[in-house]
Amino acid sequence: MTATYREIKADILGRITRGEWKPGSPIPAERELAEAYGSARATVNRAMRELAEDGIIERKRKAGSRVRLAPLRQARFDIPLVRREIEDQGAAYRYALVQSEVGRAPDWVRARMGLPAGAKVRHVVCLHFADAAPYQHEDRWINLAVLPQARDADFSASGPNEWLVAHVPFTEAEISISATAADAGLAAHLACAPGDPLLQIERCTRWNGRAVTFVRLVHHRGHRMTARY
Amino acid sequence: MTATYREIKADILGRITRGEWKPGSPIPAERELAEAYGSARATVNRAMRELAEDGIIERKRKAGSRVRLAPLRQARFDIPLVRREIEDQGAAYRYALVQSEVGRAPDWVRARMGLPAGAKVRHVVCLHFADAAPYQHEDRWINLAVLPQARDADFSASGPNEWLVAHVPFTEAEISISATAADAGLAAHLACAPGDPLLQIERCTRWNGRAVTFVRLVHHRGHRMTARY
Repeated sequence: MTATYREIKADILGRITRGEWKPGSPIPAERELAEAYGSARATVNRAMRELAEDGIIERKRKAGSRVRLAPLRQARFDIPLVRREIEDQGAAYRYALVQSEVGRAPDWVRARMGLPAGAKVRHVVCLHFADAAPYQHEDRWINLAVLPQARDADFSASGPNEWLVAHVPFTEAEISISATAADAGLAAHLACAPGDPLLQIERCTRWNGRAVTFVRLVHHRGHRMTARY
Repeated sequence: MTATYREIKADILGRITRGEWKPGSPIPAERELAEAYGSARATVNRAMRELAEDGIIERKRKAGSRVRLAPLRQARFDIPLVRREIEDQGAAYRYALVQSEVGRAPDWVRARMGLPAGAKVRHVVCLHFADAAPYQHEDRWINLAVLPQARDADFSASGPNEWLVAHVPFTEAEISISATAADAGLAAHLACAPGDPLLQIERCTRWNGRAVTFVRLVHHRGHRMTARY
């Protein structure tokens, strides 16, 4: 009987799962497997390729394949626009502008964005609500040397995030996740107690090597970021 | 002159960067671009494919390509073994076992792992240090129905994480990141004050659909997870 690639994949997975083939141990050559399963080499190859993509085995050109010893541990988090994130949860999105001004970047923002002394920025503070509940507090800084049109952008009805998406093609970002304690302002805005632990995401976006915007997003108490791998 | 795919890619990126082609607007068909650049269609295709992979443009089979409106926002976080994470920071890794027992899973753990009433688990609490400083508190539950050999595993000298890597081939995991407040026990173990905000990662690992292990990792105050995209 000729095994299909799915049958081969399931059989190999079964051997690994039952401990017949242990983490780190070698797997027979594709040629041998093809003989054992009575299948074409290409069929075995497809099974092995999928097992490698699933992170179950490791393939090395010369050394052959092994059961993966250290699991692939890379978590991917989708970071959608907050409006979409809220609407995807079935809640109504509401936006509120808290503060907006143009001025010189404070030292800590210059340090985070790598801006020269005296750099002008548009600073926007706003809130994103899920139904009536505060969901995310956004503290945003935009580098006017790179995006001068942000000086006069209107953030009264919708946030700088949506404006930026429409004005800046995606380039690259550094993102950092940490826990922070609510200060009096965050507590008032996010309807929690001062000192409450809150999940904070900071992101600096660059465009051709220059910082476009730095944002600090602080979430309501109990917020979770989730992913699968 | 015939443009290379790199030149085409740079030229298209330049048009987008300078705002000639705006977010959401259509990009000429590959056939037209090939004519304009005096290049083969395959060359243009490669440039477009890379721009799509970089998240700069969106390609749709029938509708043609567009400058991406909503940037690809998927952050990838590497989640190495904590030993490696600490050593990669140039610090010395040290491990300490706090507590270890075999018993019935408490209700909250059963709920998180999807285990039946009365399910037996190995419960291990341990600490990971970077030089002398506590780095991560690990509260680990292992399902003995799936991994009976965990009952007698020795976690006095090294943690369950390393043992699991050597005994369970990678399958799939759900991961959740949140902020938590230090209780008295965490504060004592992580050398911080009760109530301090701490970054918490919870992970449930499955193997052929059955929960193998659930872990709650709480980090020292000030810990950040970082990524680029």
